[in-house]
Amino acid sequence: MAEYPASRLAERACRVEPFHVMRLLGRARELEASGRSIVHLEVGEPDFPTPEPILAAGRAALDAGLTHYTPAAGLPALRQAIAAHYGQRHGVDVDPARVLVTPGASGALQLVFSVRLEPGDRVILGDPSYPCYRQILGLMGAELVAVPLGPETGYRLTPERLDAAWVPGTRAVVVASPANPTGAVTGLDELRALHAICRARGAALIVDEIYRGLTYDVPDTTALALALAVEDLYVIDSFSKYFGMTGWRVGWVVGPEEAVAVMDRLAQNLFIAANTPAQQAALAAFAPETTAVLEQRRAIFQQRRDRLLPALRALGFGLSGAPDGAFYLYARLPEWLEMDSMDFATRLLEDAGVALTPGQDFGTHECDRHVRLAYTRDFEVLDEGVRRIGEFLADCGSTKKKPQV
Amino acid sequence: MAEYPASRLAERACRVEPFHVMRLLGRARELEASGRSIVHLEVGEPDFPTPEPILAAGRAALDAGLTHYTPAAGLPALRQAIAAHYGQRHGVDVDPARVLVTPGASGALQLVFSVRLEPGDRVILGDPSYPCYRQILGLMGAELVAVPLGPETGYRLTPERLDAAWVPGTRAVVVASPANPTGAVTGLDELRALHAICRARGAALIVDEIYRGLTYDVPDTTALALALAVEDLYVIDSFSKYFGMTGWRVGWVVGPEEAVAVMDRLAQNLFIAANTPAQQAALAAFAPETTAVLEQRRAIFQQRRDRLLPALRALGFGLSGAPDGAFYLYARLPEWLEMDSMDFATRLLEDAGVALTPGQDFGTHECDRHVRLAYTRDFEVLDEGVRRIGEFLADCGSTKKKPQV
Ligand SMILES: Cc1ncc(COP(=O)(O)O)c(C=O)c1O
Ligand SMILES: Cc1ncc(COP(=O)(O)O)c(C=O)c1O
Repeated sequence: MAEYPASRLAERACRVEPFHVMRLLGRARELEASGRSIVHLEVGEPDFPTPEPILAAGRAALDAGLTHYTPAAGLPALRQAIAAHYGQRHGVDVDPARVLVTPGASGALQLVFSVRLEPGDRVILGDPSYPCYRQILGLMGAELVAVPLGPETGYRLTPERLDAAWVPGTRAVVVASPANPTGAVTGLDELRALHAICRARGAALIVDEIYRGLTYDVPDTTALALALAVEDLYVIDSFSKYFGMTGWRVGWVVGPEEAVAVMDRLAQNLFIAANTPAQQAALAAFAPETTAVLEQRRAIFQQRRDRLLPALRALGFGLSGAPDGAFYLYARLPEWLEMDSMDFATRLLEDAGVALTPGQDFGTHECDRHVRLAYTRDFEVLDEGVRRIGEFLADCGSTKKKPQV
Repeated sequence: MAEYPASRLAERACRVEPFHVMRLLGRARELEASGRSIVHLEVGEPDFPTPEPILAAGRAALDAGLTHYTPAAGLPALRQAIAAHYGQRHGVDVDPARVLVTPGASGALQLVFSVRLEPGDRVILGDPSYPCYRQILGLMGAELVAVPLGPETGYRLTPERLDAAWVPGTRAVVVASPANPTGAVTGLDELRALHAICRARGAALIVDEIYRGLTYDVPDTTALALALAVEDLYVIDSFSKYFGMTGWRVGWVVGPEEAVAVMDRLAQNLFIAANTPAQQAALAAFAPETTAVLEQRRAIFQQRRDRLLPALRALGFGLSGAPDGAFYLYARLPEWLEMDSMDFATRLLEDAGVALTPGQDFGTHECDRHVRLAYTRDFEVLDEGVRRIGEFLADCGSTKKKPQV
C-alpha cells in the first residue's frame, strides 16, 4: 500500500495519544502467545462475569426479539429504574426526565462536554485522572487546567485547590469519585463546596460516579444527594463497574432538564441510542438478587485491597492510605529505584511477566514515579504478582546501588 | 426546578436541530395511547427481527460470559470476518487491519469526520441526505456545501455536479449508496470518477454503504471493489439494515491503515469499544443460514417497493423511477396540494393516522415538497396507509380548489 501522507489527517485527531498500557498489553499478548505466563494487574474492569439475573434479562430480551432501536434518551423503563434506584439506595428524588441513558459513561462524557463547552473554554481537572477526559476534551478544543493531586489532600481536588487553580474562562470542573487511578472518594461536604464555587462562577461541576457502589469503609454516596439547585451539576454513571457490565456499553447522565433536552438531540445524531438488549438487561441490575451478588463482590474487592496494599508497602512502594473506593492502587515506586515508571512497567513485564499501568497514562504530576495496580484478580493472582514484583525489585536492588531503607 | 439560563449551554450543541419526525413520533405515541390506530411509514429500520442464527450467537456469548470490554478496534475475529465477507460477496481483497468495528455506522461517521476534518474545513454532500451528517459535521465545526439533488440525475451526486460544486477548502465528500432518503444507488464507474476528483484535490471520499445488500434490479456492489489507491477512500457500513441488527449498535469503517490507527485511538477514548455480545452475535451475520434469511427479506422489500410505488403514483405523488436500493420512497407531494410537507405530515397524522417523515428533515432543496415513506411494513400495513392517504387527499381536494389532473 502506498505511503499515506499524515498531513491529510486532522491535527486534533492525531494529537490523541495512545495509552501506554495498550502497547504493554500488546506486548503481553505476544509474550503469552510465546508461552510466557503473565500476571495481569492492569485491567480496569471487574474479573467477575455479569451477574446471572442481568444475563437472564439479556437472554429474555433476545428471545422476545427486542433488538430494534430505542429512543436516543434510552428505554423509558430504564430511565425510570435508574431514577428509582437513586431513591432506594440513596434516598434521593430524581426525575426520570433528567436521566439520559448513554453508550457507557464514555458516551455521557462526550455529551456533557459537548453541551457545556465551546472551543477554547477551560476545564479544571485533577492530575492524575482518567486519561479519556483529557483526550475527549482536547478533541473538542477545550483547554485543560490540570491540578496536581497528591497524598497531602488524599488525592482529592479540595475546594482550596480548586479556588487556587481557577482561571478566567473556566467553564467546567471534572471530579471522579471514587477516582481512577487513585481510588480517592470526595465526600458530600467537599462536593457541596466545589459546587458552590462552580456555581458562583458560572461553571459546571461534572461528577463522574462510575465507581459508585465500590466504596469501602466510607459511605456510598452520590452528588445528587446534595439536592442542590441542579443547574450546574452533571452526574455521570455507568453499569460498567459496580454492576459488572463493562462490555454491554450502557451508562447514563443526570443533568439539568434543559441540558438533557439538548443532549438528547446530540445523542440522536452521534449514537442513535445505546444497545437495546443491554438496556433491557440493565433493567435487572437493580433487582435485590443482583444487589446481593454485587455486595458480595464489593466485600471481595475490599479484601483484595487489604491484601495487596500491605504487600506492596512491604516491598517499598509508597501508599499513603487505603483508598476508599474503585479497585485500584496508585503506588509510588520505591524511592531507591532508579527507573521511571514507564521503564519499570516495561521491564517488569519483560523480566517478571507482570503487567501494570504506568502513571504516565494519567497525567504528568509525578506520574513517572507512580504505577497503577488493579485488584481485579483473585488472591492467588495478586499474591503471584507481588511475588514476581518482589523478585524483580530484588534483582534491581542487587545490581544497582540500593541505599539503606 | 429553577429556570435554566440557556446561555450556559454551548452554542454549537444548541444548534443541533431536533428531527421533525421525532415530534411527529411523540404525537403518534400520544394518539396511540388515546386509542387511535396509527400506520407507521416513518420507521427507518427493518420490521423483521434479527435473524435467528445471529440471536443464537448472541445467546451463546451470554452463556459463555463474553461480557467484558473488547479492543477498541473490535474483536479480531469480527474484523477478519468482515474482511472475508468482502472477499466472498464482492470478490474484493480487504486487509482486516483496515477494518475498524464501531458502535453502528453512527460511530464510524464520527471517527471518519474526526480523523479527516479540521474546524472550518468544507464538506460536500447531497441535499437531501441523511440528517445526522449535517449535525455531526456542524458539531465539529465543519462547513457544509449542500448540492441540490433531483430526479434529473437520479438523485445522485454525479461527477459533473461534484466538480461544479467544488469550493476551496473542500476536504471531504460524503456519498451514501444506496442513499437515505432517496434510495439512489451510485454505480462503480461514477464512484471511480468521484474518487478521482477527490483524490486530485486532496479530499477524502466517504462512502456510506449502510444500505449495501438492499439493492434491487442493480448489482450489489461496494466502493472497495474499485481497488483504487486507498489513501482517500473511507467506506462506512453497519450491521443495522441489511443484517437486521439496528438495536445492536455495531458498524464498521474500512479506511487507510494510517487513518485506522488514529481512529483506533479516537475510539478508545470516545467509545472504549462496541458492545461485546453484539460483536459476538455479528460473527454469525455472514453465515450461509443467515444469508438465506436476509436474501428472502431483500426479495420482500423489493415486492413492497413495487407495491407502494405505483399506489402512490396513482394518488398523484411524484416519483421519478423505482429507487434501486434501501427501503424508502422519496415522494413529491401531488402538485395540486397547497400544503408544504411539514403541514402535510402533521395533518396526515392528526386526521388520517399515518406517520411519515417530512422532507425538511433531509435538507432544504425542495424538501418542503417531499416526504419519505419507508416500506418497512408488510403489504397489509402499506395498503392501509395508502388507503388513508388517499382519503386524506380526497378530503383536501374537496375542500380546496383542486385543478384538473
Ligand atoms: C473514571 C472513568 N470514567 C469513565 C469510564 C468509562 O467507562 P464506560 O464507558 O465503560 O462506562 C471509565 C472506564 O474505565 C473510568 O475509569
Ligand atoms: C444513511 C445512514 N447512515 C448511517 C446511519 C446510522 O445507522 P447505524 O448507526 O444504526 O449503523 C443511518 C441510520 O438510519 C443511515 O440511514
